[in-house]
Amino acid sequence: MPKLVDHAQRRDEIALVACQAIARRGFAQATVAHIARTAGYTTGMVAHYFDSKQQIILAALRLILRRIELRLTQRAGTGSSDLLSVLSEALPIDAQRRTECAFWIAFWGQLPADPELKRLTGWVHREYRRLFDRCLREHWPESLRWPARLQADVSRSIITYVNGITASAVSSPRDWPASEQVAQLRMHLARLRASAGASTATEHTEKQAWTLR
Amino acid sequence: MPKLVDHAQRRDEIALVACQAIARRGFAQATVAHIARTAGYTTGMVAHYFDSKQQIILAALRLILRRIELRLTQRAGTGSSDLLSVLSEALPIDAQRRTECAFWIAFWGQLPADPELKRLTGWVHREYRRLFDRCLREHWPESLRWPARLQADVSRSIITYVNGITASAVSSPRDWPASEQVAQLRMHLARLRASAGASTATEHTEKQAWTLR
Repeated sequence: MPKLVDHAQRRDEIALVACQAIARRGFAQATVAHIARTAGYTTGMVAHYFDSKQQIILAALRLILRRIELRLTQRAGTGSSDLLSVLSEALPIDAQRRTECAFWIAFWGQLPADPELKRLTGWVHREYRRLFDRCLREHWPESLRWPARLQADVSRSIITYVNGITASAVSSPRDWPASEQVAQLRMHLARLRASAGASTATEHTEKQAWTLR
Repeated sequence: MPKLVDHAQRRDEIALVACQAIARRGFAQATVAHIARTAGYTTGMVAHYFDSKQQIILAALRLILRRIELRLTQRAGTGSSDLLSVLSEALPIDAQRRTECAFWIAFWGQLPADPELKRLTGWVHREYRRLFDRCLREHWPESLRWPARLQADVSRSIITYVNGITASAVSSPRDWPASEQVAQLRMHLARLRASAGASTATEHTEKQAWTLR
């Protein structure tokens, strides 16, 4: 009887090894041959699942996004979740996430040099933004009443800050223990919320003043 | 008579070509041979100036920091400078800065994979922080009266945001035209300043209340 192979699982397994190899060795040194060897397969076996290294990278990006989404969704289901704890799931605060984030930065660093990879991965940034927008709506429901421009600015500011912590923590891990990452994100969210609250309150007062004239 | 060669200038020239090559080709593909060829020298000539590729990278990092510092200082001397326009000098808002920032992200992406490079470049992050601290002191002089913890948090938040814009703009340049980078930084600085002002005002009131007891 032929051995049953879960192909999706094997693709994920290779993608995960690729993510770890790129985080550990850098983008170029993590060759398909190296990835295959580390995963315990032949290069031919990996070629059976992926046409090119770029396809492996794409699978790794999909896998990481799926993992982040899963963590965010699980958090949301616990009832005790807040935006800070949910977004902290995306930061490099433990070994697995440090690997994912190191891969992520290596990927960013490769993009200007690789127009084809850039073309293939445009969807990643859209998907990443969609995830953050969703977190914002779910955990700060008042944001649904904000003007669209304010919603977009707050969401973009959150992503930018998470990216900034990620880049800083990957490049200077000693300056960025997990507690410092979370503390900085906490302060950023508090400032954003206070500022958005103040600007919508002003707008409300202005509207009232207008109505009363 | 032997030709006079300005060695410091030649080192800078090679470092600049290295920065451009890494931004364009990625970290690993920008070999010493490629850098030498692009600069119009032989590999042997480059070896006369630098012992290793890491030494070239170090020179490129020094060169970029010196350029940022120069831009910040020139700005400071014009009298019409403010923190936003000064810090915008560090963002990827034109071709030269896009190249510098793409190099910067490629460097960050390489760090987890290269402990020796990481060891050699610890000073870069300290120097970068020192530059931002100085800008904060010069352009928001009220920050000198803030508690040390608040000064440190605000400075770190600014660097984190600049890093976040840099990473986002290098990886998704279409979503981040220069105007959007500056607009996002402007909002971040305004929120930070309002929040720091509010927290020091509260502290002041608390102190007064304490004195009046």
